[in-house]
Amino acid sequence: MSVAKQDVRSLAEAARKASRVLATAPTAQKDEALRAMARHLRARLPAILAANAEDLAAARDAGKPAAFLDRLLLDAGRVEGMAKAVEEVAALKDPVGEETEAWDRPNGLHVRKVRLPLGVVLMIYEARPNVTSDAAALCLKSGNASLLRGGSEAARSNAAIAAALAAGLTEAGLPATSIQAVPPGERETLLELIKLEGLIDLCIPRGGEGLIRFVAENARVPVVKHYKGVCHVYVHAAADLDMASRITLNAKTSRPGVCNAAECLLVDAAVADTFLPRVGRELVARGVELRGDETTVRVLGGAGVAVKPAAEADWGQEFLDLILAVKVVEGLDDALSHISRYGSEHTEAIITADASVAGRFTREVQASGVAWNASTRFNDGGELGLGAEIGISTSRLHAFGPMGLKELTSQKYVIHGQGQVR
Amino acid sequence: MSVAKQDVRSLAEAARKASRVLATAPTAQKDEALRAMARHLRARLPAILAANAEDLAAARDAGKPAAFLDRLLLDAGRVEGMAKAVEEVAALKDPVGEETEAWDRPNGLHVRKVRLPLGVVLMIYEARPNVTSDAAALCLKSGNASLLRGGSEAARSNAAIAAALAAGLTEAGLPATSIQAVPPGERETLLELIKLEGLIDLCIPRGGEGLIRFVAENARVPVVKHYKGVCHVYVHAAADLDMASRITLNAKTSRPGVCNAAECLLVDAAVADTFLPRVGRELVARGVELRGDETTVRVLGGAGVAVKPAAEADWGQEFLDLILAVKVVEGLDDALSHISRYGSEHTEAIITADASVAGRFTREVQASGVAWNASTRFNDGGELGLGAEIGISTSRLHAFGPMGLKELTSQKYVIHGQGQVR
Repeated sequence: MSVAKQDVRSLAEAARKASRVLATAPTAQKDEALRAMARHLRARLPAILAANAEDLAAARDAGKPAAFLDRLLLDAGRVEGMAKAVEEVAALKDPVGEETEAWDRPNGLHVRKVRLPLGVVLMIYEARPNVTSDAAALCLKSGNASLLRGGSEAARSNAAIAAALAAGLTEAGLPATSIQAVPPGERETLLELIKLEGLIDLCIPRGGEGLIRFVAENARVPVVKHYKGVCHVYVHAAADLDMASRITLNAKTSRPGVCNAAECLLVDAAVADTFLPRVGRELVARGVELRGDETTVRVLGGAGVAVKPAAEADWGQEFLDLILAVKVVEGLDDALSHISRYGSEHTEAIITADASVAGRFTREVQASGVAWNASTRFNDGGELGLGAEIGISTSRLHAFGPMGLKELTSQKYVIHGQGQVR
Repeated sequence: MSVAKQDVRSLAEAARKASRVLATAPTAQKDEALRAMARHLRARLPAILAANAEDLAAARDAGKPAAFLDRLLLDAGRVEGMAKAVEEVAALKDPVGEETEAWDRPNGLHVRKVRLPLGVVLMIYEARPNVTSDAAALCLKSGNASLLRGGSEAARSNAAIAAALAAGLTEAGLPATSIQAVPPGERETLLELIKLEGLIDLCIPRGGEGLIRFVAENARVPVVKHYKGVCHVYVHAAADLDMASRITLNAKTSRPGVCNAAECLLVDAAVADTFLPRVGRELVARGVELRGDETTVRVLGGAGVAVKPAAEADWGQEFLDLILAVKVVEGLDDALSHISRYGSEHTEAIITADASVAGRFTREVQASGVAWNASTRFNDGGELGLGAEIGISTSRLHAFGPMGLKELTSQKYVIHGQGQVR
């Protein structure tokens, strides 16, 4: 399954060539390809499940943990979900050619900004085989060729999925090399891949922080990084406390292992005595371990709610688990300064009925998503209505936050004149 | 003038700290600072000219060529131009806080995309001292702190200019560290600087291809690259030939040393016999050396116009001089394929009266600027009405083409709910 340096470059060159065709492919043809890809995923279900069973057996033999095996597992339902997701991308609006701005210059020139694809997108990911079809579909719809480098444990599954996608491309008359699964070889071949400046326009690594750091530190092609999410919920003095409690519970417990889950609760001192015991009891009832600052420990302890004293390392910590740091703050400025110091610029929420306080919070917080009276969990491509998301950028270059189809495009200036010269 | 590793990091840390203040600084305060900066540039004219005289003397002693000395030279007029340019940036619309899109979700969430600054911008440039004030002003207006690393030959001039800018910042109550001139030290300190991930959000190198490649190959922070411009003018069969001639002359001769000047003329075979001799004569009269393909050589030779046969290396060549490659093509597809093979994705122009041909050309050409019946020279921040430009990106990530204030920002999602949870 290893792949030589030269092979990696050939794959990228083929992708570059395909990207030239995709850049001007009509929307109808891309959508036809997407629908054909979905049909082929369904038609090849037995082959995909057989390949996946081999991957699973090997992963089991290698002693991989249950959570890993679950991420790797495909069944009829999951493959149907993949096919449906591809069809949903077909139904999204094509961003290519969209005019985003237009204006006239005093000399009569008419200027438009028009979206065009990025070119070749390299996805690097780990165990989940559904990323193969999800990412391929989003890249295709946005006119980009994709190179998909999944984890070695999912190699057989990914190859079977890629074969189905290629069959769909061919059926619609698009180059089969528009979507290519890169065989997961040695780390050296990954290194070679992320240095192919001029052949790869964007690299999106998805996975653990170790993988992302490795890619970011070694890549010569542009990388959209997705680091951690240390999200805060700030309950302001003027909050509706029922709402604050509902949102805190949702942000912490609905899916504690994801990046837009809350890791820290900030509560205004003015409502701490009322709010902390009630939300604390509900959190503890759902199995959450609370780690509080001195005031929180006093208030919760006094109310008989289980709480541990927080260590300095608990602030700014991404627990990804049923653990919540809790701190009592002295109003908006104190909350803003805590978030600025310990937040990860991912998602921050404020609960308040005071619009001017919310205005300052949403203006001043420098995060990819800022929620007012809503859960941090909404900072997600699907929830925001982007249709689907290829990743979440935690750095501000190119895109910040959930990335959908538009974020897989760039823009060119189209200048229309009547013979103007300078 | 050399600067130690630790000093470089301290400068970047101070910039990061200042960037937090700038991110939420009101427009009025930023504009006040810009106007004060302009005043201090004027007030310190003698000090700036004295520093520049020392730089010039040293450069002369070092045997730098006349063009270099001219780029380095400041006089009263040029400093006044710098001050005026800073005032013009004050008059531009503040992009920070601008809402670019807004929509409602079925669950009642109201989502807005709002511009925010990038953070810390590092400019790396060579001899021109005016870049110091131009770049600083654009970064400040867009809420970014700037680190300005000019060439060592301009170090005294840049320090004097930066001191004037700092005085303006202080007068308006903004951190003087919002704009910092980085002393030009050893190449090692540049290397250190471009690896400061987490402290620097964007690096913009401006200068020769060698400098840009060095930065791109060694940086760990995101880099906006500005490589070469190999721009084509395509004269279609349905072109107004007077217009085509005017635009060709302008694109080639108005300023041959810049990246949006034309390097290659493509002429449809149907009009080659009529068009080539007339445009050829005018080009030659302006001192342009023509290098033609076989047909061009035959047509121009037959008409008595000086022409050399083009070598393969002349296609895709950035001459930056009064040299023009000329090729006769068999219609739109042939022109598109030549441009796709030899163009640099900078700027391409078509001259035609046929709107459907122009439509295909503007859709299919993958360049940062595509002009229809206008000179390639208009793909420029000032000419497009961006107000000013901090650079021209030749890669598609983050921005493509001229970058103004908007391109110095990112966007965040602001999500307003009434207690929604997932």
